[in-house]
Amino acid sequence: MRYRELMIATSSEGKIIELSALLSPIRLIRPPKVLNIEEGPCSYLENAYLKARSYFEEFKIPALAEDSGLEVSALGGMPGVFSSRFSELEFGGKESETGTAANIRKLLRLMEGKEDRSALFRCVLLIYDSEGGLWAQGVCRGEITTIPRGARGFGYDPIFKPLGEDRTMAELTAEEKNAISHRGIAARRLLELLSG
Amino acid sequence: MRYRELMIATSSEGKIIELSALLSPIRLIRPPKVLNIEEGPCSYLENAYLKARSYFEEFKIPALAEDSGLEVSALGGMPGVFSSRFSELEFGGKESETGTAANIRKLLRLMEGKEDRSALFRCVLLIYDSEGGLWAQGVCRGEITTIPRGARGFGYDPIFKPLGEDRTMAELTAEEKNAISHRGIAARRLLELLSG
Repeated sequence: MRYRELMIATSSEGKIIELSALLSPIRLIRPPKVLNIEEGPCSYLENAYLKARSYFEEFKIPALAEDSGLEVSALGGMPGVFSSRFSELEFGGKESETGTAANIRKLLRLMEGKEDRSALFRCVLLIYDSEGGLWAQGVCRGEITTIPRGARGFGYDPIFKPLGEDRTMAELTAEEKNAISHRGIAARRLLELLSG
Repeated sequence: MRYRELMIATSSEGKIIELSALLSPIRLIRPPKVLNIEEGPCSYLENAYLKARSYFEEFKIPALAEDSGLEVSALGGMPGVFSSRFSELEFGGKESETGTAANIRKLLRLMEGKEDRSALFRCVLLIYDSEGGLWAQGVCRGEITTIPRGARGFGYDPIFKPLGEDRTMAELTAEEKNAISHRGIAARRLLELLSG
């Protein structure tokens, strides 16, 4: 194992909890302060790079960043890199509020009457350690439900039903989610690369 | 060393020759056929990812891709990710021809009368190996000359004078160039990560 600890380049409590469990051989250090980093429209990989680089440059500790999103077939892959700010996006009409509930409301509104409800969660992890590092990604396929169900997880979990599951991501236990989630797959791939 | 061989996800002879020397503990395999991959406007990292992924998916061998560019201060960082197709770009006016000579001609035209001639070469390397891999980058600072000089190297080398050098990149020997170039720095960082 190359890294005993990494600074986690996010302020999302949900992501910190999941990644700490998933990467348990590595200690994830919370940043002493949160940096305000503008995410771009380009790609998860680029966003993860921008976040990890900013934290590395500020705190001089190898940094791990995560970027992820939900890609809905019937919406041409949207919201994708815009997942966390979907309610504010012109695409499909802005919501009056921001945040997770508004994102979900907007997505369900756009999915009304759609036959094809297939979607996938994609996660990219990237380590920035002085001009280089590792990266890994994971995909979890499933479909969009018609109503939110479950109180666990975060983000779009209440309206995403993984393939072969009757429950939504938000109805799974943390262990069940981590076993099949995009973030779990990416984290295990990263650990493989680190020990390989 | 994790990889004895990697497929090199490029058809640029100049890059293959340089990278083969720079990464000599690893054997770089030329692809049996060249894939036509459209580079995006986003970032070197994203372009390297797109190229490496395509070759990995086609040939099922861990793939190494490179993306690089010249960033000129007085042009706001252009041509950047557009370096290899600069002559075709609307920005600054299209040239009548395409290719390296036209790219250089256009750049020198846009730099006429500019006091600030500082620029940098940036290179990103990325390995794609089944949903994960490594990445590294390197930067070489210098300035844009007023006329092309030298016949070695490739791309913008004849009009780029590295910091502290009297000669252009194209006047250096291969060994001299590799010792200071963006590609050399990125390659050595990648080897460090692979052996670390």
